[in-house]
Amino acid sequence: MAKFVYSFGEGQADGDSTMRELLGGKGMNLADMTSIGLPVPPGFTMTTEVCKAFYANDRDYPDEVREQVANALQLLEKRMGKGFGDAANPLLVSVRSGAPASMPGMMDTVLNLGLNDQTIQGVIKQSNDPRFAYDSYRRFIQMYSNVVMGMDGEILEHLLDQKKQQRGVALDTQLSADDLKQLVADFKASCKQTLNQDFPEDPQEQLWGAISAVFGSWMNPRAVTYRKLNGIPAHWGTAVNVQAMVFGNMGDDCATGVAFTRDPSTGENYFYGEYLVNAQGEDVVAGIRTPQPINRAKYQEGDLPAMEEVMPASYQELAKIRDLLERHYKDMQDIEFTIEKGKLYMLQTRTGKRTAHAAIRIAVEMVNEGLISEQEAVLRVSPDQLDQLLHPSLDPQAEKQVIAKGLPASPGAASGQVIFTADEAEELARLKKDVILVRVETSPEDIHGMHAARGILTARGGMTSHAAVVARGMGKCCVSGCGAIKIDYEKQQFTTEAGQVIKRGEYITLDGSAGEVLLGNVPKVEPQVCGDFATLMAWADSFRRLKVRTNADTPYDSKVARDFGAEGIGLCRTEHMFFEGDRIQTVREMILANDLAGRKRALDKILPMQKSDFLGIFREMKGLPVTIRLLDPPLHEFLPQNDDDVSELAQAVGIRFSEVKSHVEKLHEFNPMLGHRGCRLAITYPEVYDMQVQAIMEAACELVRDEQFDIVPEIMIPLVAHVNELRILRENAVKMADAVCERYGVKVKYLIGTMIELPRACLTADAIAEEAEFFSFGTNDLTQTTYGLSRDDAGNFLPDYVERGVLKKDPFVALDQRGVGELVKLGFERGRSTRPDLKVGICGEHGGEPSSVIFCHKIGLDYVSCSPYRVPVARLAAAHAAILDQ
Amino acid sequence: MAKFVYSFGEGQADGDSTMRELLGGKGMNLADMTSIGLPVPPGFTMTTEVCKAFYANDRDYPDEVREQVANALQLLEKRMGKGFGDAANPLLVSVRSGAPASMPGMMDTVLNLGLNDQTIQGVIKQSNDPRFAYDSYRRFIQMYSNVVMGMDGEILEHLLDQKKQQRGVALDTQLSADDLKQLVADFKASCKQTLNQDFPEDPQEQLWGAISAVFGSWMNPRAVTYRKLNGIPAHWGTAVNVQAMVFGNMGDDCATGVAFTRDPSTGENYFYGEYLVNAQGEDVVAGIRTPQPINRAKYQEGDLPAMEEVMPASYQELAKIRDLLERHYKDMQDIEFTIEKGKLYMLQTRTGKRTAHAAIRIAVEMVNEGLISEQEAVLRVSPDQLDQLLHPSLDPQAEKQVIAKGLPASPGAASGQVIFTADEAEELARLKKDVILVRVETSPEDIHGMHAARGILTARGGMTSHAAVVARGMGKCCVSGCGAIKIDYEKQQFTTEAGQVIKRGEYITLDGSAGEVLLGNVPKVEPQVCGDFATLMAWADSFRRLKVRTNADTPYDSKVARDFGAEGIGLCRTEHMFFEGDRIQTVREMILANDLAGRKRALDKILPMQKSDFLGIFREMKGLPVTIRLLDPPLHEFLPQNDDDVSELAQAVGIRFSEVKSHVEKLHEFNPMLGHRGCRLAITYPEVYDMQVQAIMEAACELVRDEQFDIVPEIMIPLVAHVNELRILRENAVKMADAVCERYGVKVKYLIGTMIELPRACLTADAIAEEAEFFSFGTNDLTQTTYGLSRDDAGNFLPDYVERGVLKKDPFVALDQRGVGELVKLGFERGRSTRPDLKVGICGEHGGEPSSVIFCHKIGLDYVSCSPYRVPVARLAAAHAAILDQ
Repeated sequence: MAKFVYSFGEGQADGDSTMRELLGGKGMNLADMTSIGLPVPPGFTMTTEVCKAFYANDRDYPDEVREQVANALQLLEKRMGKGFGDAANPLLVSVRSGAPASMPGMMDTVLNLGLNDQTIQGVIKQSNDPRFAYDSYRRFIQMYSNVVMGMDGEILEHLLDQKKQQRGVALDTQLSADDLKQLVADFKASCKQTLNQDFPEDPQEQLWGAISAVFGSWMNPRAVTYRKLNGIPAHWGTAVNVQAMVFGNMGDDCATGVAFTRDPSTGENYFYGEYLVNAQGEDVVAGIRTPQPINRAKYQEGDLPAMEEVMPASYQELAKIRDLLERHYKDMQDIEFTIEKGKLYMLQTRTGKRTAHAAIRIAVEMVNEGLISEQEAVLRVSPDQLDQLLHPSLDPQAEKQVIAKGLPASPGAASGQVIFTADEAEELARLKKDVILVRVETSPEDIHGMHAARGILTARGGMTSHAAVVARGMGKCCVSGCGAIKIDYEKQQFTTEAGQVIKRGEYITLDGSAGEVLLGNVPKVEPQVCGDFATLMAWADSFRRLKVRTNADTPYDSKVARDFGAEGIGLCRTEHMFFEGDRIQTVREMILANDLAGRKRALDKILPMQKSDFLGIFREMKGLPVTIRLLDPPLHEFLPQNDDDVSELAQAVGIRFSEVKSHVEKLHEFNPMLGHRGCRLAITYPEVYDMQVQAIMEAACELVRDEQFDIVPEIMIPLVAHVNELRILRENAVKMADAVCERYGVKVKYLIGTMIELPRACLTADAIAEEAEFFSFGTNDLTQTTYGLSRDDAGNFLPDYVERGVLKKDPFVALDQRGVGELVKLGFERGRSTRPDLKVGICGEHGGEPSSVIFCHKIGLDYVSCSPYRVPVARLAAAHAAILDQ
Repeated sequence: MAKFVYSFGEGQADGDSTMRELLGGKGMNLADMTSIGLPVPPGFTMTTEVCKAFYANDRDYPDEVREQVANALQLLEKRMGKGFGDAANPLLVSVRSGAPASMPGMMDTVLNLGLNDQTIQGVIKQSNDPRFAYDSYRRFIQMYSNVVMGMDGEILEHLLDQKKQQRGVALDTQLSADDLKQLVADFKASCKQTLNQDFPEDPQEQLWGAISAVFGSWMNPRAVTYRKLNGIPAHWGTAVNVQAMVFGNMGDDCATGVAFTRDPSTGENYFYGEYLVNAQGEDVVAGIRTPQPINRAKYQEGDLPAMEEVMPASYQELAKIRDLLERHYKDMQDIEFTIEKGKLYMLQTRTGKRTAHAAIRIAVEMVNEGLISEQEAVLRVSPDQLDQLLHPSLDPQAEKQVIAKGLPASPGAASGQVIFTADEAEELARLKKDVILVRVETSPEDIHGMHAARGILTARGGMTSHAAVVARGMGKCCVSGCGAIKIDYEKQQFTTEAGQVIKRGEYITLDGSAGEVLLGNVPKVEPQVCGDFATLMAWADSFRRLKVRTNADTPYDSKVARDFGAEGIGLCRTEHMFFEGDRIQTVREMILANDLAGRKRALDKILPMQKSDFLGIFREMKGLPVTIRLLDPPLHEFLPQNDDDVSELAQAVGIRFSEVKSHVEKLHEFNPMLGHRGCRLAITYPEVYDMQVQAIMEAACELVRDEQFDIVPEIMIPLVAHVNELRILRENAVKMADAVCERYGVKVKYLIGTMIELPRACLTADAIAEEAEFFSFGTNDLTQTTYGLSRDDAGNFLPDYVERGVLKKDPFVALDQRGVGELVKLGFERGRSTRPDLKVGICGEHGGEPSSVIFCHKIGLDYVSCSPYRVPVARLAAAHAAILDQ
């Protein structure tokens, strides 16, 4: 006969810590804690197999199940020395769900089960507390009638409110035992009236009702949706745990508490927790009474007496359990306990959630304590978590003037000019201005402006508002729900509570970690990788195979990235340099020139500027590899769009307005993403790439010749769809590069490669590899084309897609492994089939997203490249991948 | 010893008709003609292997080659009874290239080789015509010095001109023998002076010089480019033919001519050709003298005497050869002949080029004559050629008023309102207006307007102008270079030579086949598939496996397509119906509605209109399958863009201007191709597809219930990237369809499928096929996304790409088999792996392009779908594919 029911209690358990699938997380842990000798209230677990049988059986049970439950209940009665339904010495139980994967709050629970008009007397006698007994009884009826019988919870809640009014009191706790006794009768009458059904007095009927309700709640809409969103298969099913009730609220020798085996905020190794005398679990969390510390480890003046003073025996027992748990689970635990009449019960233990700081400290210290290995330590810190540690913050030395406070919606600090529309934010950002986008609230139409801004400030909206969610997704600093400011779009200004007026263009600073708005451009400090963090990262580096480079366009970014451990630049976008300072004017002259000679004249002016950019970056990277992408965006991105700006430009370059205007119109594209850009531009205007290659090679030659640098520039040609494009441009580049080397009289090795960012490039990678010495997958554009999805426009519906579970994740955040990933894999394999030593990496934003990094490791890429602040994230993810791959 | 040289002459040839690769096309044909007993001037062919040896050997020859040439030359001397370099009885030869694939005019030729100051005397004596002899000699020097010695041809041409001036004559033929003799001396002196090198007197030196020059010309830039454009591999090499010269210009018993074994224009089975007495080959082609007919088959008053009258014996011999050639080659031949002193020589035979009409007639008649099989007949007509036959033409009965004449740049006839800008043409076309785009000339920026227009008229530009080339590519009627009209863009009008003014909005008609511009909307007749054409198509249909459907949105298009043999509709685009008549107003109301109720009110008004559309189409298709694509374009396409139109709309729907304007702006997208469209719209606004499905099913149910139709509507959901999108929309559609069936009380089977038009859909086709009963590959959008190339914007550079050979073909015309094709194949295979009975077709414009149709056959698709006028093209291409596949 199959085993459907697993008992636990008195140091003995049928199950063990390998049975998550069968017993669910909760059931497994209860069995495990019991086995290692912890005082767990006994009980039994009905397995996930019962759940499957339940649904296969038209929501009923095989006879074996009923039999096994009867036996387990008998054993439980014996262990507790009480009788289920015994009027003198009643056993009360809880019935709770417990699925293999955590689904907090999604399924149903029934407490205090076993109470009826007979057993209540036993509880009164035993507790000597009629008020406690009737309060438990009325709570049971409320819970059971709602969860099991399907009664609208409002009805009984309303009766309770009436009773309080009648008694002229505000709180439940102010009702007397008699009041509650009366309520029990009223509740039952109301059930009968509403449901035309008696409230069950038979404990067996109560028990099976509750069990079926909990199994049934596996399929409630809330749980179904949650599973869909979290990728939990419906066929797993849930287990059901029936456990003896214990009470922390039966007098002053009772208590309840929660604790962490180490400090979850800082990771410091001391026993951290709170408890309340004569209270139930909810009371600690609800915050109606002030909890007391469990010990004096961090005692502060004014703290209430600690458990180690008030209940020293129980505390000593608990402290021993803490040690036992850490040695057993080799990780920081989050525990719940109850003391019933001086006896300690463990209700729960699980791996404790912690801040990134704490995670790192705990991992490193546990290695030092010999509890875990370095590999385990690395795996203990989730790469995603590091993000918390990797944003700039305000310089503690700086003078600060806080002008408003809102919600700390997305961490980090940023300064910029106040701008009130997304369009203007985008336009100014293009001109390399730092911008803070200020809106009453944001909507999907603002996405491009949010992308462009350094930070976002909204007057309305909470921690899960559009602005907050999107900003966190982008890793941008955000203060949301800042009701303290009044925004006037017409006047282009906002006013603080103190009446200070901040106009468009003025500088402010946001502290997204504190939710503060500050006046002016407050100095910031870069986050640092030091101490335990540095130790952990060193371990991570020792395990990983994948290299981590950075996407950086300036010497400053290069330096930041190197400090974060970048091993080279994987993507240096040259177009950003075209916007620097006054260059944009020269670039525009180039675009507006009507002939080759005119374009060359302008390019000649840009050449020395580009060269100095590359000198700066090469110097900063000190010989590490640098991949430079030649000009990529369509030319119209460099021209102004509205008539005023066009007219200004016309005056500046001395061309008639109508001519400039017609140029702008001629360059207009319906789908610029799929237009005349990347290598297509260079096929039409080879002189642009010629100038860029010349600048790169002159910079390299100069450093090699004059400063004994060892540099191998990697010249990257973007948007190749057909090998012929690369063939032509490669020939041009080689000609120019060799000519520069000859002129400088030095031999500088260089690589010419391409960005693989179109499906066709992946499919024909074998041909393209004939002309390319390296590939870098541009997974941003590859996602756009593979999905047929414009990142700029997706804001209208993509958030909704993710929310409704149409897509599990935003494919611009986490690489779509099934679709885009297959193309990357295929492109990689085909490229290597032609050229076994082809260097291959990715440089889309996915390069800093952990699941994508792990994918890149798995398929065998050489490196990932990501923004400077994501470099440690990628390093850690790469280490995870390597360790898990062993 | 390898055989490098193949002789032919006197009925004997070393080579045969299987040796194209070795002997080249010309050499193979000369050998073949000799073998079947035709009077071919003897000679020998140096094989393509010699060419390879030549290049492998640093442009020199192995000794065996020299030996074999010497032997072949001896044999030739013997056959001709003349001596090479013999002063009394000299043998003159031609040296010509002849590659395996035809490369007309790309390589070099030398004629009259063997002449020098000694042998000229023999020629004079034999021809008894010193003028002829010296004229041949000076021509030889001009040709040889240029081709072999590398002298600038202009120099000797200049001397010739001087001589004519000196003599006061205009034509070469007016120069005397003495003049020409003097010129020979002058030419040699000029060679010596310019090149510092004597003109070679030694015939052997001349021969080897010419041979090397001809082999060398295989690598001249012209030939290299031609090969690249035509996909001919360089390693094939060319052969060289050395052949005895014969002369048609040695007196009145000499002649030269060209002929076709059947009429190449009509295909009629009679001997068609022209000849000239006492003339060389060039003279017939050059048109200086009027050629005479070879016979009286089509004799017209005023024709010159025919060859069958003037040279009856030679004509009889030639007529016999005609029969022999047709029986031998089983195809219409294009031949060249020369008569030297009464003796007929065959210089060339090759398969004759012909019009589409002729191709069909010849193929059908040759089957009837028992010359070829039906399969061969089908293969004889190129699907591309059919295009000539499949355009509407002006009704011969209609009254016509021609107002201007230009070039017949692209065939067919079209009428519409005169419009002068591409943008306006596009806008009006969207509103279902017929438009003729009139421009001075067109440029890539006009492509979208050309797409939208029914026909294009330009004042400037020839048969290969932008307008002409693009229009032919699009299959649009075009009259180009119509200098007879003066266009005034400011006044929005054009003026004819007769002074007639045609204003914007007036109707004109273009006859692209005649190059005529006509006033008003002249009635047109559809092309017909009848007579031989119908016979051939019936044979084609009997061989093909692939079904051919059509892309049609109206009952009229459906009828045209059915008349052309369409076996169903593969793509019925419902959005076109949204523009019909006044509906656009209601559609706009729907878009501008702020809530579901408002949208539904508008959709309720559209429902009966859509239903009547489907009724019409279903009726016209009489039970053939009809695939209906639900709404695809982004909503902003339905809204006006400029302020005037927005204001008009605001008044019409009674909403404030600012509100309409903000709606328009909100819907603006950066890359609409990759935006909120297709199934994405329906995820956001399910009510739109609900209405469409309701209309489709109501129409189907009505016909099934009331008219006993047998219909299985195929409902197609566009732009699916992820199976979840299809899952949701499929559920909605099934719910609606089943509800309609129930309401009508009939059981109508329907299919729900999807358009596969994104790379991700191809890659995940196995998952998508779980929810789809059919796939239709939308290769237009799939090409755009796979290439990352917007069709609307590609006009800026794609023509240049094709011209420069970066891409061999425009991927929007011929399916890119390597890239896009791989995705189609993969999508097909993965889809079928999930659902073995999945119905699969393509409905992009490639469905009517022959090479793409053949690809679809090869990978196993069920059908292709194309525009009505391409249906016969696709049917024939599908037959080719099936026959070649056997």
